[in-house]
Amino acid sequence: MSDTNLQLTSTISEDNTLQLALKYIEIPQPGADEVVIRIEAAPLNPSDLAVMFAAADMTTARQTGSAQSPVLNADVPAQNMSSVKARVGKSIPVGNEGAGTVVAAGSSSAAQALMGKTVAVIGGGTFRQYLCANVQNCLELEPGTTAKEGASSFVNPLTALAMVETMRAEGHTAIVHAAAASNLGQMLNRICIADGIDLVNIVRKPEQETLLRNMGAKYVVNSSSDSFYDDLTAALIETGATIAFDPIGGGTLTSDILTCMEAAASRDMAEHSVYGSDTYKQVYIYGALDRGPITLNRNNFGFAWGVNGFLLFNVLGKLGIETTIAMRKRVAAEITTTFASHYTHEVSLAQVLQLESLGAYAKQATGEKFLVLPQG
Amino acid sequence: MSDTNLQLTSTISEDNTLQLALKYIEIPQPGADEVVIRIEAAPLNPSDLAVMFAAADMTTARQTGSAQSPVLNADVPAQNMSSVKARVGKSIPVGNEGAGTVVAAGSSSAAQALMGKTVAVIGGGTFRQYLCANVQNCLELEPGTTAKEGASSFVNPLTALAMVETMRAEGHTAIVHAAAASNLGQMLNRICIADGIDLVNIVRKPEQETLLRNMGAKYVVNSSSDSFYDDLTAALIETGATIAFDPIGGGTLTSDILTCMEAAASRDMAEHSVYGSDTYKQVYIYGALDRGPITLNRNNFGFAWGVNGFLLFNVLGKLGIETTIAMRKRVAAEITTTFASHYTHEVSLAQVLQLESLGAYAKQATGEKFLVLPQG
Repeated sequence: MSDTNLQLTSTISEDNTLQLALKYIEIPQPGADEVVIRIEAAPLNPSDLAVMFAAADMTTARQTGSAQSPVLNADVPAQNMSSVKARVGKSIPVGNEGAGTVVAAGSSSAAQALMGKTVAVIGGGTFRQYLCANVQNCLELEPGTTAKEGASSFVNPLTALAMVETMRAEGHTAIVHAAAASNLGQMLNRICIADGIDLVNIVRKPEQETLLRNMGAKYVVNSSSDSFYDDLTAALIETGATIAFDPIGGGTLTSDILTCMEAAASRDMAEHSVYGSDTYKQVYIYGALDRGPITLNRNNFGFAWGVNGFLLFNVLGKLGIETTIAMRKRVAAEITTTFASHYTHEVSLAQVLQLESLGAYAKQATGEKFLVLPQG
Repeated sequence: MSDTNLQLTSTISEDNTLQLALKYIEIPQPGADEVVIRIEAAPLNPSDLAVMFAAADMTTARQTGSAQSPVLNADVPAQNMSSVKARVGKSIPVGNEGAGTVVAAGSSSAAQALMGKTVAVIGGGTFRQYLCANVQNCLELEPGTTAKEGASSFVNPLTALAMVETMRAEGHTAIVHAAAASNLGQMLNRICIADGIDLVNIVRKPEQETLLRNMGAKYVVNSSSDSFYDDLTAALIETGATIAFDPIGGGTLTSDILTCMEAAASRDMAEHSVYGSDTYKQVYIYGALDRGPITLNRNNFGFAWGVNGFLLFNVLGKLGIETTIAMRKRVAAEITTTFASHYTHEVSLAQVLQLESLGAYAKQATGEKFLVLPQG
């Protein structure tokens, strides 16, 4: 074990400044139920960007420090400070998940069993070299799975599986997914094909349409097309999908999905009702690609509808421990197939804090995806 | 029994015209489980207006017919015709509920037991003189209760009770109600006082504030006040209310309620989270006083939230038959106290169709309330 331990932190100060920097911290000693993981790969997810940049205006970002130990500073607009008041003055470790090798283990048998193994881990600030984690937050990867392959074992795979389990738990039989060409969308597409579930993929570009069709997707509609409403309604009639997952939120897409679901549900209604159809229509918003206002034009979809936030940890709580365990087992077994992730950049901790990376981070929605290599 | 039976109907024709008229129909013969009710009083609810006027532009309304048998015609804008296509060419009977005397009964013991009784009834088009109804849709009123007192036994009382039962079923402990000075709001206020439930009433005018305070309401906040957000947040901190019912819908009130709930929930959070608080926040939209877009500014309230349509019949289905029966019994027992309704106008069937009534119908949200007397 090396005796340095670098960690990427995000700190907002009283003087309205955000600072991103690498800090040397101690290599931890594991408690009984804990292990120390040498983090070898960690994805940079949109949720990590939210922790890193918080309420700062990144167009004001400036670089200081050295190539070895770069620092990024940016201004936090005064009106945004109240939204982050609970973290002012605190160094927040960044990184929601990752994978690596267990190099030290606590005394419990669960911890000892992981010694030397390659594990994925959730939580704790994975953009660091050595992370101490409770064994419950670790997923043992199968022999032969590398840390790079297992780095994204939690957020996207469990979210995709949670969508399918939520569909089942709430009595729906097919799914609509927006921004469907994402890494998560590709996983969901593979899960639905494997499980025989009809999936209506909504994308914005012809090349995304092609990508998903080449992966076997049967229903792909393009929201930029003039015939989008008709195309979506036709796919909803064919599939009977009445639940949708939307990572965008802002704008009218959620409302448009509900409108097309209602058009599909009411097309055969013999009697007119001022309340719309009885068919319950649900959209879950699981991301914030557009943080602008969500506009619902409910005149078009009656009274039997719901729009809800969808956050993995809350959803797993609702689905229960047995379902969650089954989901984790499936992820470990299929991490190089169903749940394979693809990255466009591999970067060191220092490279994360390069000014020139900021532009690419902003393009995550369109396919840029970073893998952080803390040992590199 | 008289041998005439007048019925108020609403008809949209292929030529984009709405016609409201009184039609003579036969006095029905009851089936085994049916009774014939001489309707003596029926409230004109907002949902009745939606059936009556549908997609028509009532600023184009013109009067024809006689004083005895008036007719109202109005234009339906061409772009609205598709939303009502299932009712084009059909005479739709109007009136969702009412009360009167059972003057004929079918052979079943349940039907016979109601003979001569004063009953409230739901569904079927109550703006008529004699209505044939299944006994399941009837509620026997207590001896001494008049038809006028019992006319509004279903829509408002059951909706108010369904709010309280939904609060309980979903694990909340206090309620927020918007447009709270309405007839329904006054009922909800009385229920909550009787049941010891904290209720945060949102109103728009000082006189509504006074009205509710005089009725014993503890928490009343005025959305027109400059201190509305602070007042609402303070009431939410005191009551812990995390479920709201909003009959308005359009605009930002639903979003504002969620924002203040989140402010109340997160005020003591030790750690900042980009996902907001874990406290689940729910708004049900149960009316359409504003049919404009619903705007949700979710940056202010994280990921643990839901906004859903709330429609009595669907909700009763979810709450189950036992709860529904208990609710109906309570309504019958407390119809002149907890569930008392107040009307500003009593009108005959013919008077409903007077051009000069239209202006008052538009003001239902601000306290105008019509009781139709089909025998008058």
